Order: sequence, then C-alpha cells, then structure tokens
Amino acid sequence: MSPQSNQPIGIFDSGVGGLTVVRAVRKRLPHEDIVYLGDTARVPYGSKSAETVIRYSHACAQFLLSQEVKLLMVACNTASAHAMSALRRTVGVPVIGAVEPGAQTAQEATVSRHVGVVGTLGTVRSGAYQAALRVLDPDITVAGQACPLFVPLAEEGWLEGDVPRMIARRYIDELAAAHPAIDTLVLGCTHYPLLQGIIGEVAAAAWGRRIALVDSASAMARAAEATLTARDERRQEGNGSLRAFVTDASRLDEVAPRFLGEPLDHYSRVDL
Amino acid sequence: MSPQSNQPIGIFDSGVGGLTVVRAVRKRLPHEDIVYLGDTARVPYGSKSAETVIRYSHACAQFLLSQEVKLLMVACNTASAHAMSALRRTVGVPVIGAVEPGAQTAQEATVSRHVGVVGTLGTVRSGAYQAALRVLDPDITVAGQACPLFVPLAEEGWLEGDVPRMIARRYIDELAAAHPAIDTLVLGCTHYPLLQGIIGEVAAAAWGRRIALVDSASAMARAAEATLTARDERRQEGNGSLRAFVTDASRLDEVAPRFLGEPLDHYSRVDL
Repeated sequence: MSPQSNQPIGIFDSGVGGLTVVRAVRKRLPHEDIVYLGDTARVPYGSKSAETVIRYSHACAQFLLSQEVKLLMVACNTASAHAMSALRRTVGVPVIGAVEPGAQTAQEATVSRHVGVVGTLGTVRSGAYQAALRVLDPDITVAGQACPLFVPLAEEGWLEGDVPRMIARRYIDELAAAHPAIDTLVLGCTHYPLLQGIIGEVAAAAWGRRIALVDSASAMARAAEATLTARDERRQEGNGSLRAFVTDASRLDEVAPRFLGEPLDHYSRVDL
Repeated sequence: MSPQSNQPIGIFDSGVGGLTVVRAVRKRLPHEDIVYLGDTARVPYGSKSAETVIRYSHACAQFLLSQEVKLLMVACNTASAHAMSALRRTVGVPVIGAVEPGAQTAQEATVSRHVGVVGTLGTVRSGAYQAALRVLDPDITVAGQACPLFVPLAEEGWLEGDVPRMIARRYIDELAAAHPAIDTLVLGCTHYPLLQGIIGEVAAAAWGRRIALVDSASAMARAAEATLTARDERRQEGNGSLRAFVTDASRLDEVAPRFLGEPLDHYSRVDL
C-alpha cells in the first residue's frame, strides 16, 4: 500500500449531476474518501464552447489538487469531451473521464456494432465518443443526438409522464429513423440516468426492440477501482467520507439528493 | 445637449435574451450607440443564488462602465430582481432594470388588479415584481409562477407545437387555478417573448378570456428614452451603432438573430 492510499479521490462536475458518479464510486470503493466539486455557479457546460469548458475544467482541477487528491475524476461528459488531454498534460495524478469508460461499456454491450450517443450539444459536437470507440473498434458506427432539454427536465424533476415522453420522442425518433441498426445507447450526460425509464421506453418503441442503455457512472467507478488497484493506492479500511464543495448553493438541498440517492448533509461554498 | 450625449448606452444580460431589449431600444432611440454584453459563459442566472447573481452583475456593470456608457440597462430580469440596489449604489450613472418598467406597464394594463408574473426561479422567488407593484399600487395582488423550462425551450427554438404547449399548460394552468382573477401576465424573462404566441394561447384557454401580456423590453426602452430626455443626454443625429461582447461565443450566430430580429454581424469575446 503506497503512501497515497489515504488521500481522497477528487470528482468534479459542472453541477450536481456528477453526484451519480459519487454514488457509484462509494458503492464500489466504500473505504475511499471523496472530495466533490460542483461548479454550480457556471452550470451548464453543455451549451458552451470548448475554450470556455477547458478554462473552467482547469479551475475545477486546480481546486481538487489543492485538496491533495490521488485521482481526479471528471464526471461531466462535456468537460471530459473537451478537456481530458489538456488536464492529463497538467495535473500530475491519474485522470478518469466519463467518455472512455462509457465507450468501453458500449463496445462490450453492442452486438450490431451500431451505437447511439445522447448528450449535450457540446459532447455530441465534440465527437469524443466517436473517437473513443474508434480506438476500441474501428468497425463500430457511432451516431450522436444532442438533447438540450433533458438537463432542465431532470433538474425540474419532470421524470415521468407526457412532457418528458414527448421531448424524448422528438429526439430519439429522429436518431432511430436515421440509424435503425443501433442496439446500444450511451447516456452521455450525468443528468440522463434520472430519465432512464422514459428514455428506455421511448427507445424500445422507436427501434422496436429493447435497447441497451449505458450509464457512464458505474463504468467510471470500475475504471477508478482498476486504476487505484494497479497503482496500489486503494484505501483498505474505514468508512469513506464525502466532502462536497459547490460554487453556488441555490436549490442544492432540493436537487442534490435526486442524484446522490441520499441527502447531501454537508457542503461548503467556494469561489473559483 | 450635455457632453454625455455622444456616449453609448450599456445593456447587459446573462446571455443573448437581452438582445430583445437592444431591438426595442434601437427602434425607439435610433441615434443612440449601444454596447451590449451577454455573459454567455455563465448563463443562466435564473437558477442561481442572489449572491452569485449580484457578483456576476457587478462584473458585467464594470465592463460596461469601462466602455464609458452614459446609462446602464440591466436586461436580465433575474439580475434586475437581485442586483438593482447594489448596482445603483456603485455605478455612478443611471440604471434601468427590467422589473420596474415591466411592473409599471402591468399596473397600467390591469383592470382586475390581479397580475401574474412568469419568470425564472430566481426572479419569482425574489418577490421583486411584488415589491415594485406594491409601490405603485398597494391594492394590486401579484402571483408568481416559475417556469424553468421556458428558457431552454426558447434557446432550442421549439416555439410552437405540442411540446411547448404542454409545458406552458403545466405551468399556467396551475397559476390560473390558484388565481382566477388575473387579467395581466408579465413575461418576466427576456427569453419569454419568443414563446409569446403559445403563452397567450394557453393563458386564454386557462382563464377563459384574453390575458394582457407585458413584455418588459419595450417598457425598458420607454424608460431609457424618459431618463435620457430628462438628463438632456439624448443623441440627436446619426445612425446608432451596436457593439456586442459575449463571454462565450458558442451557437451565437444561430441563436442571437432570434432575439435581435436580424443577424448579429460583429461581436467580440471577452473574459470577465
């Protein structure tokens, strides 16, 4: 066990959606301390330019490095799509993003070798999932569909019923019509697992069969386990703690539990 | 005519929605030069805390003051709701917000003296329209309804059809059921005029009669004209220019013309 083992894992996201990653990591690695940063004052990243997202991602990473994290996890798919190589060049600890683990799981799940990706405009336009899947298997065809209304739907808590169903249909029917061979759909945004029920239902109707849904949170937790094991940096005992920081605390008590799966007891506000 | 007359008017917004105010000001005051700032890297303000919105509003105001504006206009309703008194204390030029002119027009329009306000969560929770209308007429009853999905709908360009209609119904039916005497509805967010058609239709169905819709952009332009006239600072001749600055340029060419009513030919990116 290396001296780094007792240092925390750092996880950042543009907002509270990354708490789904915290939840998955705590389940898989219950001894690990976690420091979470949600950049809620500048959320969302998904509609913003690569340049702005890279700048904000560096600021988030610097904050977590000041907390002496042993591993940096980029929960936000948009930040992962734009900023991974820039972060890897500069941070000095291993970095796990959302795209590569999600792509890995999609490659394992697809039989038709046609994969769909739903995500923010930034994630879809970046082509990051296409690039990651091409490395894994050049024969896989990837088609992306930006779904800008899914994040506000999830934050509003409108997860069932006619409104989310009609919005999901509008996005997914278009993808299914253009790409009928898709059998696997990556939920390429930390908010989307909350809409998994509706997305699965609408996708099954659109393609006429069950579609595998890939949620990157659990894939990221597996990647974190593998990385810490390989580096001999896993913490072996104790109940892992969670320290959470946000750049704006508005509605946090109301929205955070939807993503974390339990109340967020303590958090601090920081300026970046 | 005072020496300030040839200085520009400064207008800021959390994003591009404030271009509806630019459009109204150019129509009413065609000789005036305008400097516009859209804080598109940190948009939206509507879901964020008062503290964060005040901080960002000061940064926007400082940038416009560095451009030597003679008048500052806060196009963003959320910024107006939270930051007006803080800005008025510090900027040294007259400040026109969105809330007071909108409240003034609503007071003129209502007969039943029951006014509804639709806006972001921040605007509605602030109670700013209630406070502004109470000053004008203590007997007017004001009821607010936050509509968080209207901004993403407007930015997505989904302005007609089933999806915006169902979303508008969900918000407005709730307001109508609780406040049947409302005859005037303030569109308390710069994005909402794009959804005016749907909002008017759904409101007429919900209340069973035509509802007056108040758009603060034209009310703000009237207030600017009155302020500059009173201070003898109106520019008397020439075609007014528009210089636009944004903090993130993503999708600007696509989205800005919807609000400005014409293409946005030139803009520069700035960091605040």
